[in-house]
Amino acid sequence: MKLQGRQTWKFGDKVFLNSTGTAVGPMESEGPLGSLFDVRYNDLHCNEKNWELAERRLMEDSIASCLNKAKLTNDDINFFLAGDLLNQVVTANYVARGNEIPFLGVFGACSTSMESLAVGAALVDGGFAQRVVAAVSSHNATAERQFRYPTEYGGQKPDTATFTVTGAGAALISSEPSSVRITSATIGKVHDLGIKDPFDMGSAMAPAAADTIMAHLKETGMAPEEYDLIVTGDLSGVGAPIVKMLLKEKGIDVSGNHRDCGLMVYRPDQEVFAGGSGCGCSAVVTYGHLIKELNSGSLKRILVVATGALLNPTMIQQKESIPTIAHAVALEGTKGGSN
Amino acid sequence: MKLQGRQTWKFGDKVFLNSTGTAVGPMESEGPLGSLFDVRYNDLHCNEKNWELAERRLMEDSIASCLNKAKLTNDDINFFLAGDLLNQVVTANYVARGNEIPFLGVFGACSTSMESLAVGAALVDGGFAQRVVAAVSSHNATAERQFRYPTEYGGQKPDTATFTVTGAGAALISSEPSSVRITSATIGKVHDLGIKDPFDMGSAMAPAAADTIMAHLKETGMAPEEYDLIVTGDLSGVGAPIVKMLLKEKGIDVSGNHRDCGLMVYRPDQEVFAGGSGCGCSAVVTYGHLIKELNSGSLKRILVVATGALLNPTMIQQKESIPTIAHAVALEGTKGGSN
Repeated sequence: MKLQGRQTWKFGDKVFLNSTGTAVGPMESEGPLGSLFDVRYNDLHCNEKNWELAERRLMEDSIASCLNKAKLTNDDINFFLAGDLLNQVVTANYVARGNEIPFLGVFGACSTSMESLAVGAALVDGGFAQRVVAAVSSHNATAERQFRYPTEYGGQKPDTATFTVTGAGAALISSEPSSVRITSATIGKVHDLGIKDPFDMGSAMAPAAADTIMAHLKETGMAPEEYDLIVTGDLSGVGAPIVKMLLKEKGIDVSGNHRDCGLMVYRPDQEVFAGGSGCGCSAVVTYGHLIKELNSGSLKRILVVATGALLNPTMIQQKESIPTIAHAVALEGTKGGSN
Repeated sequence: MKLQGRQTWKFGDKVFLNSTGTAVGPMESEGPLGSLFDVRYNDLHCNEKNWELAERRLMEDSIASCLNKAKLTNDDINFFLAGDLLNQVVTANYVARGNEIPFLGVFGACSTSMESLAVGAALVDGGFAQRVVAAVSSHNATAERQFRYPTEYGGQKPDTATFTVTGAGAALISSEPSSVRITSATIGKVHDLGIKDPFDMGSAMAPAAADTIMAHLKETGMAPEEYDLIVTGDLSGVGAPIVKMLLKEKGIDVSGNHRDCGLMVYRPDQEVFAGGSGCGCSAVVTYGHLIKELNSGSLKRILVVATGALLNPTMIQQKESIPTIAHAVALEGTKGGSN
């Protein structure tokens, strides 16, 4: 049985993250991790005629980079697991139309990055696939106009708001050995503490992140300090302190090794409100930066906890509060390292 | 290896569909299968104050029926795999908030029924779950106003249009023996023959259904006549003849055993244009009707091929054509039967 406890998967020792690819927009290129991303555009249109096509281009670029590095083509892949923030996950759908890989659409809002990686790892570990590509994307302008207002409208936002990352990340999962193993994953439950403000998703998502981290540590028997980093997806400057506080209340101290991708992808002086968010946020930070640290051995073992706010504007208009979720995937470098 | 060929999963002999639940609206209650559904509402609001809540109620009812029959509670379930047609699959998200089962959101438009069943079966077969609940829903009024116009607008439609089923279906998958086995699944590729008319999804989806059926037969080595029924999801009166023709051109004759859920769920004299569609269509027909036939032994072996049109209105406004997909799951009665 690969199941540990109720909601955690412990993978065998033959599930690897073989290769990754990332593609980002201008703000992310100018951020502290900018030079680490494979494809960088200096305008939001990414040489396309509208923003939805730009987002599609980003996802396609991330996959092309990922497969190029692995010297594989679309035909070598059994399944493409992907999702994004657009209605009906159309970025993923149209990318799947182009790459002709058997396709499983997944959705967990910004947690889709680790949902797709976890399910992909399970399919490889269970013998249901030889190779899976997992990919996600988000785009600041497509998200703004779909979830809030078109960017041109110039609507004001409070400081608790987050800034959707324009970026896409792709990962190749297989049983062929590489320098990063996917060791376990914890699938989250949906939490809702009654927050109704879509301009404060960090506060809404922090309890989901805390719950998934607690479930993960309990079901795997890992201590928090066994991870060099426990990295949340997009809690931002507002949610990051909350998750640490919630965990501390339960006797779990992550003050030394907690990071948030939303705070890593931009410099403090970039105008991004409380920090980055979106499927692309955890994906480009994990696949563009953290994987390289695992590859080099400067990190040995990390837990990536991607967070998602599972709302749409109609639900907010109907006075619903915001359900949230977090999915965690543990990654381990196979070359030795800091531990 | 559970993988056969590129895109087909052959499950071990310990993956069962233990129980199902269905909930439907008034038109479906009055249809030829009406008496087979567990929960039936005589108005579209299903005792709720808006249509989105009505759809949520349908999904919740279907799960409650499914678990009641199996004498299980939410706490007995490892994972809830669900999706629907609403933006950000919010029906599934809010149901997951209520049931507190670790949640994986999936999306394949109307093919989500078999996507969730296939992935759930893989998780059970691979030892990643003891019990999974897979559920989907659709609602005529929520779909009309999101994808087309609010129903009150009274927009005219051509005869090629389909009528979104108001209904939800849930299935319990585990390794505990029951009278229906899940034997294999084929994950589809995305197809697009350039059709841009969202009022003719049957024509758009037929090639995806044909391709998945061909891949399934090739990769499993099954002959079409080994299935008592090959049932497509929602090709309707327009798409059903096309899939038969496409298969015939490839030397595959399904003229005797092909059915379409969109044509089974309503009577010919009900005003539903070309037939039923939506996630709920294949789900209520499969989980409310076909499973009972497998249970009783009057059907021995069926292939359910759920079809999905992966568009959203923005893509149509941008002059994109409609990508489509189909996922197939093979089910087998364990009590003997007609073959």
